[in-house]
Amino acid sequence: MFRPQIKVLDCTIRDGGLINKWQFSDEFVSKTFQVLSRACVDYMEVGYKSSEKYFSRVENGAWKFCTEEDLKRAIGGKNGTIKLSAMADIGRIDPQDILPKSESILDMIRVACYAHETDKGISLAHHCQDKGYEVTINLMAVSKVMDRDLDEALNDLSKSSVPVVYLVDSFGAMYSEQIHFLAKKYFEAMPGKELGIHAHNNQQLAFANTIEAIIAGINHIDATIYGMGRGAGNCPLELLISFLKNPKFDIRPIIEIIQELFITLKAEVEWGYHMPYMITGILNEHPRSGMKAMASKELPNLRQFYDDLKDGTPLD
Amino acid sequence: MFRPQIKVLDCTIRDGGLINKWQFSDEFVSKTFQVLSRACVDYMEVGYKSSEKYFSRVENGAWKFCTEEDLKRAIGGKNGTIKLSAMADIGRIDPQDILPKSESILDMIRVACYAHETDKGISLAHHCQDKGYEVTINLMAVSKVMDRDLDEALNDLSKSSVPVVYLVDSFGAMYSEQIHFLAKKYFEAMPGKELGIHAHNNQQLAFANTIEAIIAGINHIDATIYGMGRGAGNCPLELLISFLKNPKFDIRPIIEIIQELFITLKAEVEWGYHMPYMITGILNEHPRSGMKAMASKELPNLRQFYDDLKDGTPLD
Repeated sequence: MFRPQIKVLDCTIRDGGLINKWQFSDEFVSKTFQVLSRACVDYMEVGYKSSEKYFSRVENGAWKFCTEEDLKRAIGGKNGTIKLSAMADIGRIDPQDILPKSESILDMIRVACYAHETDKGISLAHHCQDKGYEVTINLMAVSKVMDRDLDEALNDLSKSSVPVVYLVDSFGAMYSEQIHFLAKKYFEAMPGKELGIHAHNNQQLAFANTIEAIIAGINHIDATIYGMGRGAGNCPLELLISFLKNPKFDIRPIIEIIQELFITLKAEVEWGYHMPYMITGILNEHPRSGMKAMASKELPNLRQFYDDLKDGTPLD
Repeated sequence: MFRPQIKVLDCTIRDGGLINKWQFSDEFVSKTFQVLSRACVDYMEVGYKSSEKYFSRVENGAWKFCTEEDLKRAIGGKNGTIKLSAMADIGRIDPQDILPKSESILDMIRVACYAHETDKGISLAHHCQDKGYEVTINLMAVSKVMDRDLDEALNDLSKSSVPVVYLVDSFGAMYSEQIHFLAKKYFEAMPGKELGIHAHNNQQLAFANTIEAIIAGINHIDATIYGMGRGAGNCPLELLISFLKNPKFDIRPIIEIIQELFITLKAEVEWGYHMPYMITGILNEHPRSGMKAMASKELPNLRQFYDDLKDGTPLD
């Protein structure tokens, strides 16, 4: 699949940080940056922009905050063409904490919000645009959003000046048919907008659903090195780059860093296909119960875990 | 996806045996059989039919041979509705080693062959049909077969009395577009035949490609428990059963046996997404070099492994 409009964003540090509280050394982030630059990936998402008012630097690594000092320590003067992005969650950052673009080495802020807070998301995104950044909105967890609410969110977004809206499968619950259905719905509801895709791998479908999103015309593509990301992880960058076959991409530095850093890291910080994540995925549930099960010394009884999650939902 | 014509075949012992030389205890096979029966899977493939003239019982476990004694020891009288299958590879079994159906608890023989030996495959399949078995032909490694040769093979198969032909992605190299293209080609070349799908997981696409095959009208579906199979493994049965949503299927016994037996087994006998298999998959190569790399004490330099496999092909 060669389509020059396709832009690849690596969010290894940002989404991967959700499983190790962003405890990546400066050297690790620096090497990742160098590799992504050599591989000709379009964007590197370095972490979250969060306020130190709300989160502690003792508990969380630097990439939960991404101050200019943090960024410069690991990335320095930023040679080359790769752009830098950070994600901002509604309610975890104050608008005044966003510096003017002229004072930052970040190029883009991606605003993550749930459908019911789309108005807040648009407001923050417009604020970032006014400060000079590229922006996107990543509408999370849409596999649980009722049609009417999603239509309203998309309608609001269509009237905003945000140019890119992401289809996000936060729970790793979608099949290819949902991806095609939602891509069509998003395109029709927001004429002229570009779409993005961010997939999770609970059902081993993150890469496959990303392919289907590309076939459906989506051009902004999220991936992470060796699939590192919350719970079951994300679309693996090495597979995506190989699929895209755009001559500018080079898979070899990615293979090198996987061998140097990520195979060991995966043995320590477990992401990927594990039964608790698979079960939350097939049941279209938030992975938090799966993460709790994986964090305990011994796996719980999985049959019971499945039954509880399937039948234990309150029926009020 | 609920389509009552869909038949699920579990080949955990047969394809999984390719990584542990079929060294499954009778108890392991017996438990697997009980679980598949309770889950209402349609077929269990218990192993290969191979001649003891060609292979040693010292080196290979019983499920390389599947004699009636082997089968009865593990499975006994075979209660319930699940059918039993064994695979026969061309050149590894003599036709006279196949017992008449009346003397066997097997219901089906699946003949595996390469496109260039389709004539031999049809001959063996017809022989098995004459002895009273259900038969299929599994045309292996078609991602490397030239169009003209594949057309000839499909034409021969269309004239045979074999009712089911499998689309087999032996190298885990196919994307969804290839699955749809080949499914259409197979259906058009063999009117009236049913198709099957057997996928490998080198690019984390075994389940996804199986879904696409089902969407394309394919009704005979291979899967294995926890994805156990050669190299990167196969389409995981637990994901498939959940996708199919046919009320007859029950995922819970499969979750139980994964916890009881397969999580531990996977830590000992490594299958799944590993870089050597990923690299053979993206390069559309036989997984043998990947299996050699995984079997060595330390992984080889993966960048070199990639370069050698990509550029090292003889150019005669």
